[in-house]
Amino acid sequence: MLTDLTIALDMMGGDYGPRSSIPAAIAAVLKHPNLNLILCGNQQVIESALSKANMLDHPRLAIKHCKEVVTNSCEPASALRNKKHSSMRVALDLVKSGEAQACVSSGNTGALFFMAHYVLKMLPGIKRPALISAVPTEKKQPVYLLDLGANVHCDPETLYQFGIMGSIVAGQALNIPSPKVCLLNIGSEEIKGHDGIKQAAKLMKSSSVINYQGYCEGSDMFTGKADVIVCEGFVGNVALKTCEGIAKLIMHKFSKALKKHFFYKALAFLLRPVIKKLYRRVNPDQYNGASLVGLRGIVVKSHGNATNKAFLAAIEEAAQEVQRKIPEKIQAVFEQVDTEKQPSGPHP
Amino acid sequence: MLTDLTIALDMMGGDYGPRSSIPAAIAAVLKHPNLNLILCGNQQVIESALSKANMLDHPRLAIKHCKEVVTNSCEPASALRNKKHSSMRVALDLVKSGEAQACVSSGNTGALFFMAHYVLKMLPGIKRPALISAVPTEKKQPVYLLDLGANVHCDPETLYQFGIMGSIVAGQALNIPSPKVCLLNIGSEEIKGHDGIKQAAKLMKSSSVINYQGYCEGSDMFTGKADVIVCEGFVGNVALKTCEGIAKLIMHKFSKALKKHFFYKALAFLLRPVIKKLYRRVNPDQYNGASLVGLRGIVVKSHGNATNKAFLAAIEEAAQEVQRKIPEKIQAVFEQVDTEKQPSGPHP
Repeated sequence: MLTDLTIALDMMGGDYGPRSSIPAAIAAVLKHPNLNLILCGNQQVIESALSKANMLDHPRLAIKHCKEVVTNSCEPASALRNKKHSSMRVALDLVKSGEAQACVSSGNTGALFFMAHYVLKMLPGIKRPALISAVPTEKKQPVYLLDLGANVHCDPETLYQFGIMGSIVAGQALNIPSPKVCLLNIGSEEIKGHDGIKQAAKLMKSSSVINYQGYCEGSDMFTGKADVIVCEGFVGNVALKTCEGIAKLIMHKFSKALKKHFFYKALAFLLRPVIKKLYRRVNPDQYNGASLVGLRGIVVKSHGNATNKAFLAAIEEAAQEVQRKIPEKIQAVFEQVDTEKQPSGPHP
Repeated sequence: MLTDLTIALDMMGGDYGPRSSIPAAIAAVLKHPNLNLILCGNQQVIESALSKANMLDHPRLAIKHCKEVVTNSCEPASALRNKKHSSMRVALDLVKSGEAQACVSSGNTGALFFMAHYVLKMLPGIKRPALISAVPTEKKQPVYLLDLGANVHCDPETLYQFGIMGSIVAGQALNIPSPKVCLLNIGSEEIKGHDGIKQAAKLMKSSSVINYQGYCEGSDMFTGKADVIVCEGFVGNVALKTCEGIAKLIMHKFSKALKKHFFYKALAFLLRPVIKKLYRRVNPDQYNGASLVGLRGIVVKSHGNATNKAFLAAIEEAAQEVQRKIPEKIQAVFEQVDTEKQPSGPHP
């Protein structure tokens, strides 16, 4: 049960826009009696859709008309300059002003990141925000992977800070005191990787707020060896999207293999529900929202392909982050780290 | 049918050493009547294993005794300095001297790369060698991915050269005149990615020897959109190993889901052969060898976990590369490129 809270939704983003965001918003308020939503987007479109669903006068659904939309082809800097009245920007402004405690968008990731950074600003002491998401493992609990593309390259201290932020998010979500943190590398031996990653490993090893476990490789990301896996945005994005690609490939090959033989064809039909459920589970990018952490506010990014269910999951993720007070907890830990020895200083 | 050729095998590498390399070598000579193998490793161990299989006096199996082994924990530079009599080094020396036309090893990748680079040297005009492997797609033919970890970071011209080398390998293997080449990036729009990748894209676009198709993301690596995908070694290694990880995860979750219900449990039993075959197919890292390209000689790296079958596949890959004259073809194309306008020059 969620306590009273308000979330601003960018209704116009992603491949489906209101077609997925409206049903998700309706499902969210019906499911969570203390949740208030501010629907940012074209008033006429939203009203017409709510009216069709007999939800136009719902007391916990407010509409904020926005005359612009940030499209997928829009350059981040141009979106920031020219789309001040877009549904994405207005949703972020509502978080900034305190009218909403979090916002959710399935729009252009680069623009959302750029705008969120500009509007909400960084928490004190944090160099860069990161995009983090839960990824399934062989164990019951997922692993939290960051950065997923907010920062193409990251210096060692940024990776180190991601380790701290990831620990807080995973610790709160999984309810564990000191999550195991690994750095994603191309080998598990200490000699592997580039200088930046070796420097980041040193910082993590000597930190009092990170339970550092060493390197992990792409092949053991999903074994449950780590609770948090840290990498540069370019690498994290490729890894996450490769999961999506290989999951699709496996499903494709599996269906094809089953269709080859009449006997297996019958099995395929029976197996369809298991396969579908599995596909959703191992396809984190499609299904879970990713959160921007390190900012003075909560921003959850839903996949551009987000269905109603995925957008609903992103709204619920945002609500949980509000209740877990993620930004406040990150700030508190960074204040503690700041009073300790500066780990990035070149002098001992 | 292979025409007369000789391949040197590092018998002592990988997790299984002679336990997988001996059966693979025997299977290879029995399957290919014109193939000669030089087995580099501990003479006593090899002789004893061959003798058990009644293959000690086989006319196309020669033994080259090596008193040292490069272990997995050995640092590349130290292996080069201190392991001059190792099975890995001797196999490479045999290629250098022309006694063998190619070599195969499942040992320490870093050491193999370092030694091969030192012993065989680069082809003229090529900046760095790359590790390339075929990865399955939804289509019939695979896609060739490089670099898989030989170079952590790569400058734009190196990526551009990888595009050329990948085109030659894929063109020969798939028998197509101008393979489609993509750069792996975190978005398909031109504005995405870092400066290095944008520079590489420019070089590829203006090249007469690359059929450049733009960026591709992790999620469409396996759709068959590209015949060659180029990326930095760090990214390629993570992507390939993520495939391995997610394939394991899917198989794990699938078996678990099936075990939950008696009805599905019975299905799982019937499906076992299909699932096993599929797992091998979508797990390229485990199953195919990866080749080092750009050197004055052919070196195929089999997975550290290589089974007999995988090691045999690597031997066959090496034999095919000899027949396709991959190094000669790479050299010819680079000579052609060299006479054209230097694509990397800062002045137009």
